[in-house]
Amino acid sequence: MALDDICSPRGEFNAIMMLPPPAPVPPVGAEGIMSTNTFSINNDHRLDLPTLDTPPRILLGAGPSNSHPRVFSAMIAPTVGYLDSAFIQVMDEVAELLRYAWQTDNEYTVVVSGTGTSAMEAAFANVVEPGDRVLVGVAGYFGRRMVDIAGRYGGDVRCIEAVWGEAFTLDEIRQAMEIHRPQVLAVVHAETSTGVRQPLDGLAGLCREHDCLLLVDTVTSLGGVPLYIDDWGIDVAYSGSQKCLSAPSGVAPLTFGPRAMAKINHRQTPIANFYMNAELLGKYWSGSPRGYHHTAPAHLFYAMREGLRLVAEEGLAERWLRHQSVAETFWAGLAEMGLTPHVALEYRLPSLTTVRVPAGVDAGAVARRLLNEYNVEISGGLGDLAGKVWRVGLMGYNARRENVAVLLRALAEVLGR
Amino acid sequence: MALDDICSPRGEFNAIMMLPPPAPVPPVGAEGIMSTNTFSINNDHRLDLPTLDTPPRILLGAGPSNSHPRVFSAMIAPTVGYLDSAFIQVMDEVAELLRYAWQTDNEYTVVVSGTGTSAMEAAFANVVEPGDRVLVGVAGYFGRRMVDIAGRYGGDVRCIEAVWGEAFTLDEIRQAMEIHRPQVLAVVHAETSTGVRQPLDGLAGLCREHDCLLLVDTVTSLGGVPLYIDDWGIDVAYSGSQKCLSAPSGVAPLTFGPRAMAKINHRQTPIANFYMNAELLGKYWSGSPRGYHHTAPAHLFYAMREGLRLVAEEGLAERWLRHQSVAETFWAGLAEMGLTPHVALEYRLPSLTTVRVPAGVDAGAVARRLLNEYNVEISGGLGDLAGKVWRVGLMGYNARRENVAVLLRALAEVLGR
Repeated sequence: MALDDICSPRGEFNAIMMLPPPAPVPPVGAEGIMSTNTFSINNDHRLDLPTLDTPPRILLGAGPSNSHPRVFSAMIAPTVGYLDSAFIQVMDEVAELLRYAWQTDNEYTVVVSGTGTSAMEAAFANVVEPGDRVLVGVAGYFGRRMVDIAGRYGGDVRCIEAVWGEAFTLDEIRQAMEIHRPQVLAVVHAETSTGVRQPLDGLAGLCREHDCLLLVDTVTSLGGVPLYIDDWGIDVAYSGSQKCLSAPSGVAPLTFGPRAMAKINHRQTPIANFYMNAELLGKYWSGSPRGYHHTAPAHLFYAMREGLRLVAEEGLAERWLRHQSVAETFWAGLAEMGLTPHVALEYRLPSLTTVRVPAGVDAGAVARRLLNEYNVEISGGLGDLAGKVWRVGLMGYNARRENVAVLLRALAEVLGR
Repeated sequence: MALDDICSPRGEFNAIMMLPPPAPVPPVGAEGIMSTNTFSINNDHRLDLPTLDTPPRILLGAGPSNSHPRVFSAMIAPTVGYLDSAFIQVMDEVAELLRYAWQTDNEYTVVVSGTGTSAMEAAFANVVEPGDRVLVGVAGYFGRRMVDIAGRYGGDVRCIEAVWGEAFTLDEIRQAMEIHRPQVLAVVHAETSTGVRQPLDGLAGLCREHDCLLLVDTVTSLGGVPLYIDDWGIDVAYSGSQKCLSAPSGVAPLTFGPRAMAKINHRQTPIANFYMNAELLGKYWSGSPRGYHHTAPAHLFYAMREGLRLVAEEGLAERWLRHQSVAETFWAGLAEMGLTPHVALEYRLPSLTTVRVPAGVDAGAVARRLLNEYNVEISGGLGDLAGKVWRVGLMGYNARRENVAVLLRALAEVLGR
């Protein structure tokens, strides 16, 4: 959208521009006349604070999880400008390592400069045009959030719903596709609110039959759970930094495949978002020359590079195995205490386990004691599962046996089991 | 927007929900059957990278500027969850210190979890409804950006334009207000593309006469240039972290006064944005209990707290004086070299100086030599001033005499003056 397209006709402003120049106002402080007495300052909000001293939490909830120590070392490398060749190189490396982690050749693979929620918004804002039918699989909190966001961008949103803790079958999705004939099918691969891993087999074929994009939330799976963007035919995916990638929150991966790019490039309406605009972001990430769009949060890019570098060093298969193995250790420990995961084994995420709260136990009180007495954070249930489950994340750097040991022992002590 | 409002009628899904449960699919790796051979991994994008090693730049361009060293120490304090009481306290402290820096009592004073550009979008997305007339003062690149963003949210955008390097007079703005009768008047207090300080005197009265909101971009003024949100009657303002506040990019201040909140609370249409939604953000910042909205970038909040703590320690008046005094030293040095600032003294920002490129000098080549030979970054001109000026930022921690000395000496050597 060029400026001239939306400004009023120039004629009426020419008169204004012809006015005499502004009367000179002595600038505050110029010519040596300024002192602190020049200014009247309201000191009501001038807090006198000590040095920040946050507690050393072991973050085993739904996120954020702890970052690998190496990530913090990388994060405080010297600041460089957003178009410095040193920074362009960081961007290129982040994109390439993300392709590895996501198993995709997608050229359009970036991080957006916001949290996973902003990447969810970026996904919908760019591929949904007003009036597009968007079919959302809602089996938890983040499916609901997709419904909300798709609606804000004018999507004609339809839902298929599952009980929180269950996954959709391919047949269920096929039937809903036939009823609604959507332009976008959106599902959550790893539903952070329920701990369910939604199988994606067959969805790509279904979407191609219906000339529909497959949009997948991989916030709690990328880097921890088997996931193949290209082999599984996923057209749009996004994720977060602070779960299985072990980097701090504030930047979030986003990828568009060729079918998604075609839809974006042939939109009939402008993208109703500037900050998350795929076209403008794309010029910053791969334009020649790179075009200014925003001042990238350089230090979070550094952190993400290190988080992804750790993924590449470890290897994806080894990392997925580690998550699975550590989770199985945790589940075995739960069984010994008589505690039950909420999700059936075949759909259970290794990265996020929902644990049923035993009858008569105050879920919130247990979580508070773990936090206050052991510095261990776990999360409560959200939405339909509020009060009914705890949510335990064993993600990225935190997917280690020592964390399982701490949590099982602390939980046993607090529950008296 | 409740889920039930926008989902299709439930009846047709009940049939789907009654289908038999999904056939069990053996999960990858469960029951001890998984090994690294289970997975076929594409290693094409698996880079083997060295430790990050960015150059130690002195960032004297349009931003980012260098952060104070104490900001980096604070930034790597231990991660805590987004609803941890320790984090809620950080949020409260950041909000309160922002009120001091902005000289406002506005309850709605937050940082958004994105860069200054995202805060600009947050400002418009929340107060502009489709069809609202938005009058934008365009005297540089960021005025143009306001036009773009306001248009994406359905604003009926009108412009008043000034030559890049000049400010609007109150009379010019009054005349445009009378022609366009806008619901929102948007101006840039400190135009980063031109180095102009737009006087704001009288705009509040004008806006109240016209029942119009006054929306001001303070990205390059907050913490470096005299600015009084309440005394000047500013209804909406936003800023950035990485200019005069000396914190890394990635979070951005945003404040709404009572008149703006009234407009937001009486919107006829939903806010067409989720991540930057004032209502949802507000529940996270001050709800009781705080409501989950996104996983705040905790480490950038820590950094912002420290940046703002440094502002409170130094004192606003002292800080404004320091910026002015350091800039005057720089301007005197330019004069000795026969170089001329582009902006008249009465409208010249201390935080960002545009310096005219002498005839016959290749602006880009000079900037590249400063970067490559001295590690000093300055910026080139944008838009109408491309190739015609350099942009020199002396902001926050970087507004120090040693930086002026380095830059003047290096510039003299490169220019042979």
